[in-house]
Amino acid sequence: MTDLFKATKAMFHLPQGMIYLDGNSLGPLPRAASERVARMMQDEWGEMLITAWNRAGWMDQPARLGDRIGRLIGAPAGTVVLGDTLSIKVFQALAAALSLRSDRRVILSDSGNFPSDLYMAEGLAGLLGQDHVLKIAPPEDLGAAIDEDVAVLLVTEVDYRTGRRHDLDELTRRAHAAGALVIWDLAHSAGALPVDVTAGGADFAAGCTYKYLNAGPGGPAFIYVAPALADRVRPALSGWLGHEAPFAFDRDYRPGRGIERMRVGTPPVIQLAALEAALDVWDGVDMLALRARSLALTDQFIAGVEASCPELVLATPRDHARRGSQVSFRHAEGFAIMQALIAEGVIGDFRAPDVLRFGFTPLYIDAADVQGAIDILARVMRDRLWDRPEYRQRGKVT
Amino acid sequence: MTDLFKATKAMFHLPQGMIYLDGNSLGPLPRAASERVARMMQDEWGEMLITAWNRAGWMDQPARLGDRIGRLIGAPAGTVVLGDTLSIKVFQALAAALSLRSDRRVILSDSGNFPSDLYMAEGLAGLLGQDHVLKIAPPEDLGAAIDEDVAVLLVTEVDYRTGRRHDLDELTRRAHAAGALVIWDLAHSAGALPVDVTAGGADFAAGCTYKYLNAGPGGPAFIYVAPALADRVRPALSGWLGHEAPFAFDRDYRPGRGIERMRVGTPPVIQLAALEAALDVWDGVDMLALRARSLALTDQFIAGVEASCPELVLATPRDHARRGSQVSFRHAEGFAIMQALIAEGVIGDFRAPDVLRFGFTPLYIDAADVQGAIDILARVMRDRLWDRPEYRQRGKVT
Repeated sequence: MTDLFKATKAMFHLPQGMIYLDGNSLGPLPRAASERVARMMQDEWGEMLITAWNRAGWMDQPARLGDRIGRLIGAPAGTVVLGDTLSIKVFQALAAALSLRSDRRVILSDSGNFPSDLYMAEGLAGLLGQDHVLKIAPPEDLGAAIDEDVAVLLVTEVDYRTGRRHDLDELTRRAHAAGALVIWDLAHSAGALPVDVTAGGADFAAGCTYKYLNAGPGGPAFIYVAPALADRVRPALSGWLGHEAPFAFDRDYRPGRGIERMRVGTPPVIQLAALEAALDVWDGVDMLALRARSLALTDQFIAGVEASCPELVLATPRDHARRGSQVSFRHAEGFAIMQALIAEGVIGDFRAPDVLRFGFTPLYIDAADVQGAIDILARVMRDRLWDRPEYRQRGKVT
Repeated sequence: MTDLFKATKAMFHLPQGMIYLDGNSLGPLPRAASERVARMMQDEWGEMLITAWNRAGWMDQPARLGDRIGRLIGAPAGTVVLGDTLSIKVFQALAAALSLRSDRRVILSDSGNFPSDLYMAEGLAGLLGQDHVLKIAPPEDLGAAIDEDVAVLLVTEVDYRTGRRHDLDELTRRAHAAGALVIWDLAHSAGALPVDVTAGGADFAAGCTYKYLNAGPGGPAFIYVAPALADRVRPALSGWLGHEAPFAFDRDYRPGRGIERMRVGTPPVIQLAALEAALDVWDGVDMLALRARSLALTDQFIAGVEASCPELVLATPRDHARRGSQVSFRHAEGFAIMQALIAEGVIGDFRAPDVLRFGFTPLYIDAADVQGAIDILARVMRDRLWDRPEYRQRGKVT
């Protein structure tokens, strides 16, 4: 598979002299994306104008690209659609799940979840009234916290700080046994490791496209609804493009067929053009091979950093089964260390209070990049390059 | 001002041999947009990658461009922000307004409103419980329907089918007198005619950028919240980028300052680059001059069509004060007529059941275009060019 990943690496624009270990936050530019977007803007928007909604297939694109993402997450055709942001898609899935279990009041999640998921759940619970609550367990106790009060379990597979991976299949079995529905947040899973929403029995799943899928900043989110449920849920965000017949302009809302009802407003056509080019890179990529390579890269990084930087404390599980496609280390001076590292050409990121975070994205990161990053990090630590006032000034970090 | 509009017309790519009267649905490509987007993708996404969130100002762009839209709608700096779709922004405004008038249960709107606004209101009322209701009045009775049960009046200024314009100031006065809040939907107003949310006393306003503002297909929506209210509303869609400190990754949601709390998820940076180029065209455009030209163009079209096509029945008010920047005619064969007209190079659109709709966008439409459209429409009607089987087959229309 090395040849395959050599080929995929060549499909990205990677800046000279930079080792980019932040593709878990924002994937790099696929070389084909610039031209694809330019062509869409000139030939479709520019020349076809309004008629491009049909002639260029803009209207169906959220479903067509949804099917291509479906292949990466084990979802059958017609069960995934693009649009909005992940926060909005989580809100939609939560509202739908609660409507299916309207006799229960508890949304269960864990403190390792990405905060926006928890905020959106909090906001929804507030709208629904005081008897709906969001319960937040520690990640390690999440399974044990599932009981027959839980309407819906909202779980992000991979912890954005530590890279710790939940056992989604097991959590889903437990939740279903207790009569709860399950939403998988695949933000750090789609394109990062093998996912199978069908085999795992997810009721809903959502994820974003600008991390491991490389769709560019602000690329739209995706949502999956299990086929058995899709025609049963009444959308809370009942926008016109989720209507059964948007262009009938009926006064009353009638949900569209299946996953179509999870659409809300006008799709972001320019972003979708970039996503389409980004998805081309995935053609022919075997997710098991990707996973094997991801584990090899993270193993290599862990071993190299532990050997050369004893002050850094591993925050990511060593157990392959419990690891996503990133590695995190803790250090009290993590912020300054990351600034120094970035100045030396290794791009990772920092997550408060003390986490240094590195994403390993096999489509364009190889063993030589990992060794380079280890060497530079070792130098930053050995020579205390981080110990400068300018590296301690905190601005906004992403 | 003719020279100004000659200059703005030159800033757009308009296809050869086409008279484009559908800018009220999708504005044309600003010439600078392709290059702006290409540069953003290559120099910012491609080269700066994750660091562009700060270095290229991506994170602040929704507020920065919001300020530029603010100038066109009478909103002070710091009161408008970009993001999501108009349906989502209407949902946010409605939820916020209802939380401020939590003792009341009625959302009032009219049947001339764009259906998605009504659908979103219906969805929100469903979430909040059975005692919240959406009341829909005929447009002409909207003012009279305002009573002391109304929590919020949701009104779209210009009817998307007929071009009929509400008197927003008067409706807002009546609503305020009854203790209700008011949301202005400016989908067919922003960039179409002078708007003053401040003088008019709007509590909330929202609109889209891909119609008269020419940001391209799926360009993000904007939302305005009156300064006196912005710090008081608790967002229902409480996403991380609306948090007071998104990168603190706190477990609990604390709303950001003022309009910032109306942000939800990651902004669509590629779409925003196109919007930025589109907004450049507006520099130096005086909205009163734009309005004068819009009325001249719509007057010209009405007079020309009525003189040459007696079978077409005007659906748009003759009264300037009650007219937006579009003209609509009714005809039982409206669908086929529009198909024939499009085949002859005049692009308008059709809205069920019988409306032929034409947008007049002074930035790039001039009197010669209007005369050309009149002549072609007259020929289509006189020679019954629409009376062909292929023009009667209905696909999806936008």
